[in-house]
Amino acid sequence: MTIQTDADGRLVHLLTLEGLPREALQALLDRAEAFAAGGDARQSLAGIAVCTLFFEPSTRTRLSFQRACQRLGADVLGFDAASSSTTKGETARDTLRTIEAMGVRGFVVRHSGDGAVAALAAAAAPGTVLVNAGDGRNAHPTQGLLDMLTLRQALGHDFGGRSFLIVGDVLHSRVARSDLHALRTLGAGRIRVCGPPRLLPGEDVLAGCEVFHELDAALEGVDAVMMLRLQRERMEEGLVGSLEDYHRDYGLTAARLRRAAPGAVVLHPGPMNRGVEISDEVADGPQSLVLRQVANGVAVRMAVLERLLGGRG
Amino acid sequence: MTIQTDADGRLVHLLTLEGLPREALQALLDRAEAFAAGGDARQSLAGIAVCTLFFEPSTRTRLSFQRACQRLGADVLGFDAASSSTTKGETARDTLRTIEAMGVRGFVVRHSGDGAVAALAAAAAPGTVLVNAGDGRNAHPTQGLLDMLTLRQALGHDFGGRSFLIVGDVLHSRVARSDLHALRTLGAGRIRVCGPPRLLPGEDVLAGCEVFHELDAALEGVDAVMMLRLQRERMEEGLVGSLEDYHRDYGLTAARLRRAAPGAVVLHPGPMNRGVEISDEVADGPQSLVLRQVANGVAVRMAVLERLLGGRG
Amino acid sequence: MTIQTDADGRLVHLLTLEGLPREALQALLDRAEAFAAGGDARQSLAGIAVCTLFFEPSTRTRLSFQRACQRLGADVLGFDAASSSTTKGETARDTLRTIEAMGVRGFVVRHSGDGAVAALAAAAAPGTVLVNAGDGRNAHPTQGLLDMLTLRQALGHDFGGRSFLIVGDVLHSRVARSDLHALRTLGAGRIRVCGPPRLLPGEDVLAGCEVFHELDAALEGVDAVMMLRLQRERMEEGLVGSLEDYHRDYGLTAARLRRAAPGAVVLHPGPMNRGVEISDEVADGPQSLVLRQVANGVAVRMAVLERLLGGRG
Repeated sequence: MTIQTDADGRLVHLLTLEGLPREALQALLDRAEAFAAGGDARQSLAGIAVCTLFFEPSTRTRLSFQRACQRLGADVLGFDAASSSTTKGETARDTLRTIEAMGVRGFVVRHSGDGAVAALAAAAAPGTVLVNAGDGRNAHPTQGLLDMLTLRQALGHDFGGRSFLIVGDVLHSRVARSDLHALRTLGAGRIRVCGPPRLLPGEDVLAGCEVFHELDAALEGVDAVMMLRLQRERMEEGLVGSLEDYHRDYGLTAARLRRAAPGAVVLHPGPMNRGVEISDEVADGPQSLVLRQVANGVAVRMAVLERLLGGRG
Repeated sequence: MTIQTDADGRLVHLLTLEGLPREALQALLDRAEAFAAGGDARQSLAGIAVCTLFFEPSTRTRLSFQRACQRLGADVLGFDAASSSTTKGETARDTLRTIEAMGVRGFVVRHSGDGAVAALAAAAAPGTVLVNAGDGRNAHPTQGLLDMLTLRQALGHDFGGRSFLIVGDVLHSRVARSDLHALRTLGAGRIRVCGPPRLLPGEDVLAGCEVFHELDAALEGVDAVMMLRLQRERMEEGLVGSLEDYHRDYGLTAARLRRAAPGAVVLHPGPMNRGVEISDEVADGPQSLVLRQVANGVAVRMAVLERLLGGRG
Repeated sequence: MTIQTDADGRLVHLLTLEGLPREALQALLDRAEAFAAGGDARQSLAGIAVCTLFFEPSTRTRLSFQRACQRLGADVLGFDAASSSTTKGETARDTLRTIEAMGVRGFVVRHSGDGAVAALAAAAAPGTVLVNAGDGRNAHPTQGLLDMLTLRQALGHDFGGRSFLIVGDVLHSRVARSDLHALRTLGAGRIRVCGPPRLLPGEDVLAGCEVFHELDAALEGVDAVMMLRLQRERMEEGLVGSLEDYHRDYGLTAARLRRAAPGAVVLHPGPMNRGVEISDEVADGPQSLVLRQVANGVAVRMAVLERLLGGRG
């Protein structure tokens, strides 16, 4: 999956952060920063219809995109394709083409299959714009962008002298993959990942990262800790022990967090499993940027939608 | 649960009608009356986002608030938290804080737990406004307000010489509790309640009410009959006999209604169990104000949202 | 079910195409044509609320009406009455009257019962407008209109010298019934129907049609082929054999389509069962107007809503 641009070099879809040039990424973050600061662009997408096309359920991400659309003045249509009766056996491609034919210009798509959103983008008509809202374990680019915006606000624009730690189920995490792409693009000084061996991916994903299996060691001196959500199905699959075991080994507590650099920040994409990967004390503590991430999420999605759909109404 | 006001004495949330001063209640009804008469305030909440956050399913109340938001120009986001997959084990408080961080200023919340909405209000950030759309058996303040508006339109502003009867499952009814608070505040002359002994609450709730177990006696000379919906689960709990038994003993029929004062009005919060607590003849008869209640519901919710959120955009 | 007009001869509801005068039908198609060409009427229904009231699930039709409302500036309220918990045993009539009382002026109604939408229309208050979005096997007038618009764009306004073929489960199809009414009204030269004997209705529905049981013969020389969707439940009911059998006998393939007139067009109301009633080659081929139908659907629904609700805001 590579970045797709039109004849004018303009980004067509946002499917991944892999390969997105640093300038393009920074420009999106700059615009998002303005939106996060309250800058508004109400009606800049007036008359443009955007469909949230979710083949996998999600409320948070859907609401965040919906709010972004509202602030831009776009019309929103919701299609919850996860509830199977709606599609009656129709292929995802036919569903997309059908809604597209209704005059819908933008699609925010989530799908459980790796690469499924890119495949749909390939089937879309010219002029249609897709934003990947998460595909399998592959990519979640707007989450990556909002994490970068949050880190930039906390640590400054220069990531060169900073160290970043991603903790948890990196293997199944599209959030981690998008964060890793973006951190590399933005020139992060050191990138560490930490998790149980069975929940870490191979060298292809972790190239250039320092790999840890013990959280205490991994935390030493880092400037930012990016926690991942533990999916409960990983327990059923036998990939982790009990939730108690996981918390003991990989849960971020206030005591542990003291090993990080003073003032280190903590991120989590939500929803949080309190008492599993993160303690209440950390989640609600002064170093937590969890709610800031959510706020930045709307701003980042506004910037992406405006970039892809703006000036084409 | 007490009324919460800010430093300027302004109402912050609407959680209950208990303790709401008469002047504040009348002011809301006056404003609602104007909206009910067609007065519009389109765009008075433009740019403000309101989330209907329902931890317990409801279509009627949600649609009524949604329509109120539309008429005020607010953006609406729906979160059906009752469908469990959406929250993935997240606490209600985290759900609220998350949506709040998306820039949502108003929350219309329904929850099955008594006091749950007040608990969420206590966790909300400053500037966030909650409207209780029903919590457990505790309170349903906008239903109470719409009932008062409907009664005021029918009987005039002075409730002092009037008698009011609430019939049915008062024990489990948040509608009855909110109606009782409001009737007392507005100086209702006599308040009667009638229902099977096992469906009536204690003295704490019924203070100052006349209690009846026989409907014919209770109806004698009353000016307004406020029927409650019989929840089918009460049968399963063995609290009432068959639906036929309930109808025989507590169903409002045209013949029975003749015992009330001439022109007495009949209210029901809906949805009605026709043939159980109310007969078709009464439900659709000239004394029924059921549809007027629904119309007033939108107007009352507009008044509440405008009061809590207006001028803060 | 007959066409209902008010004292000024104005159409009140759109329940069926049966009996709709040719001039009225053509006027709707003319207006829809303008909308399909990009003509807009944003805000022409501003302030008017429309409820999509679906007692039977549908995503495509609901989205199409929703998009039509957005383009007209109407406020949309969605009521998915198919999920039973929402109505708590309330009658469909009470549900309609309740939402009507919230100030909703237009209803887009789908119901599984033949004539159910007309029955609701009869119960509606004066000034309320219903559009039938499909009732049982009875009627789906906006689908009929969008099919006619699509045919008119392809074949020209004069249907007199043209032959039309409807293929599949005509017996259970409201689409077929609405198409048949409209084709007759517009003076179609020849109308053929083709399907397994057990899936064809009686003479009352097929009056004036040529009936075929073999697809090859039916296709000979036709100008338009209108495929119907095979509902999977017909297999369970034993009305058709296997999907493979059905495809062999009644599936439209490129080879078969060559029997039709050169340039003959193919329609399908969607969602398509690819490989059952229609092959990929035909569905995606140059003669397929399937996506054009979808685009026309929004335009036709705009024309209908504007006609019924416009100028009454």
